[in-house]
Amino acid sequence: TVARLRPFASTIFAEMTALAVEKKAVNLGQGFPDTDGPPAMLETAREAIASGLNQYSPGPGMPVLRAAIADDRAARFGLRYDPDSQILVTVGATEAISATLLGLIESGDDVLLIEPFYDSYAAAIALAGATRTAVPLVSDGNGWTVDTDALERAIGPRTRMLIVNSPHNPTGTVFDRDTTIRIADIAVTHDLLVLTDEVYEHLTFDGTVHTPIATLPGMFERTVTVSSAAKTFNATGWKTGWALGPAELIDAVRAAKQFMTFVGGTPFQPAVAYALEHEQAWIAQMRDGLQRKRDTLSAALAATGADVKYSAGTYFVCADIAPIGRGDAYEFCRSLPDLVGVAAVPVTAFVDEPAPWKSLVRFAFCKQDEVLADAAERLRKL
Amino acid sequence: TVARLRPFASTIFAEMTALAVEKKAVNLGQGFPDTDGPPAMLETAREAIASGLNQYSPGPGMPVLRAAIADDRAARFGLRYDPDSQILVTVGATEAISATLLGLIESGDDVLLIEPFYDSYAAAIALAGATRTAVPLVSDGNGWTVDTDALERAIGPRTRMLIVNSPHNPTGTVFDRDTTIRIADIAVTHDLLVLTDEVYEHLTFDGTVHTPIATLPGMFERTVTVSSAAKTFNATGWKTGWALGPAELIDAVRAAKQFMTFVGGTPFQPAVAYALEHEQAWIAQMRDGLQRKRDTLSAALAATGADVKYSAGTYFVCADIAPIGRGDAYEFCRSLPDLVGVAAVPVTAFVDEPAPWKSLVRFAFCKQDEVLADAAERLRKL
Ligand SMILES: CSCCC(=O)C(=O)O
Ligand SMILES: CSCCC(=O)C(=O)O
Repeated sequence: TVARLRPFASTIFAEMTALAVEKKAVNLGQGFPDTDGPPAMLETAREAIASGLNQYSPGPGMPVLRAAIADDRAARFGLRYDPDSQILVTVGATEAISATLLGLIESGDDVLLIEPFYDSYAAAIALAGATRTAVPLVSDGNGWTVDTDALERAIGPRTRMLIVNSPHNPTGTVFDRDTTIRIADIAVTHDLLVLTDEVYEHLTFDGTVHTPIATLPGMFERTVTVSSAAKTFNATGWKTGWALGPAELIDAVRAAKQFMTFVGGTPFQPAVAYALEHEQAWIAQMRDGLQRKRDTLSAALAATGADVKYSAGTYFVCADIAPIGRGDAYEFCRSLPDLVGVAAVPVTAFVDEPAPWKSLVRFAFCKQDEVLADAAERLRKL
Repeated sequence: TVARLRPFASTIFAEMTALAVEKKAVNLGQGFPDTDGPPAMLETAREAIASGLNQYSPGPGMPVLRAAIADDRAARFGLRYDPDSQILVTVGATEAISATLLGLIESGDDVLLIEPFYDSYAAAIALAGATRTAVPLVSDGNGWTVDTDALERAIGPRTRMLIVNSPHNPTGTVFDRDTTIRIADIAVTHDLLVLTDEVYEHLTFDGTVHTPIATLPGMFERTVTVSSAAKTFNATGWKTGWALGPAELIDAVRAAKQFMTFVGGTPFQPAVAYALEHEQAWIAQMRDGLQRKRDTLSAALAATGADVKYSAGTYFVCADIAPIGRGDAYEFCRSLPDLVGVAAVPVTAFVDEPAPWKSLVRFAFCKQDEVLADAAERLRKL
């Protein structure tokens, strides 16, 4: 393994999922749903295979999917992306992120992150030969918020890009509108590119509103917005995501993407297009279901005596295990499958500076009610 | 676009396919079949979707596919790969190639190529921050062969890896056993890693035998073998490929791959496993069909007065257009859709030193008989 990748040999998800499988634990570690997406979407993919849509799509993705993505952004946010030059279909959000970094970040550039951060950001920055600076979220009592002053102070002469992720994995924080405006101001003032990972855009609870940073003044032209079908339509195994932005930025992302995978899976593309166009009600229902699941799991965790944080979005809820006499989240997660038969991931896997996060554990609640009930039962033994 | 990617803004396939679509030309440029793979394979993918195989596969790929790949290599070549540590499922051969370079090649290393070379090799080398040295194939009259002495002379102190591709895209050359043995000797003598792209492994004609370089003495431990379902089972849009090698090398490839795309499309994986296990007869039949198609297209090209080269494998046949008074393959390919309604690609798109290849054009013959007949008709107007 080359030097730049040595710190990234494996992912925390692979590690904890392998442990879950070995110990037959309920896997609340890796975030993937255990039920399928909309039946008509699945049927559309099956029909695509039967009707011969099994060869390369065009490089930017099938026109029907790019049109559906454009329509969806226009309808929900009034954002107008040209399907021909401003939308690129990718192999999931992961490829959209790595291609954005490989296509836009020079070796030696610095990329600003908000900590904790999804693990692939740091690895993709390393692949681009760049460095990173991470600014921690700060506690607001029950959850977290961005210290925008600290964020601005962290900008240096080599800072080229800021990565934003809201709804935020792993904490479940949803950046409020004022915070997002302040982040946008900083990006404009310091002329930064922004990569915004919005894969949980539909999964917000208690009426919390997601503000796409690209909608704010001065942001369209400097922002690559990444999202995907995985979390919106319970199709993590379809690996169908997208990157949206001004043509100049998307050209650069495509320059990298075309040599990383060339294109993505063709038959999924008309199916995701169908879902974007016809399954908004399905999304709303899933979101309501997830909110109940969050409450179920939060209550089960609270019953153990852990300090459960507030999750306003995503699939995830975090709990501080210090009150139950556990100091180290990683050690706790290594032992949890054996202890009670549940798997989770330590938030320390998402940070450079572990101190503030040492006893924080992330649990996924995107699971069937029976599975969550079983997990709750098991957690009671803690 | 970052400096390292600027030479790779677009691909020749995207350019010529766009031209073909615009001019309603018969597209013999980009290599993809216009018929589907084995019906039972398609049905297996459809069943996978219906039965809920729509979430992330394990990081290395579904066990059923890794087992099928291992069995296939063992049955055909006596090569034994451990499915758990020596096989990685990728998003097509393209990702296997780029992840191999990003995972194993340090910035500043040099990679040795045989020219002409598939375009993604050079781009992936650039993504890794490495340099390349290309050694041209040499004419053997009707086709080409590797100048192994020149290859050895091109090795320098920074040379870390040799990329081999046989059956060879774009020329259709299949390296004979003696040549492959000599290349292996050079790799062993100079302690080079070898990346071998064998996506056309099944597509050889006139009884020509493909020799996987990993089967030769001293090679298993230094070779990453890349192949895919795309060309073997007419499934270029399924983007299901694999990298095989010793665990230490595959670990490095996976380290890169997990942050490029995480995993590939899940429902295709049991389908490709099925095809590897049950569709060898289908492959043999397709190969026979392709041999006929090669003959049809070669004859049509010869009838124009072009000097048609011998293709022993792949989807492709090359023709020298100098005898028909055309000096520049790129200009010719830009004008061919307008001239006669056929698209092709210039071999100069695959080289660093264009001189020996200036008037060579690559045509794909992986098309239905009617389409090839139509193309033949059109080419007659030349
Ligand atoms: C890409 S694997 C992990 C899934 C996920 O997004 C998460 O668990 O955070
Ligand atoms: C990956 S697009 C091009 C398909 C192909 O392998 C070729 O035409 O050479």
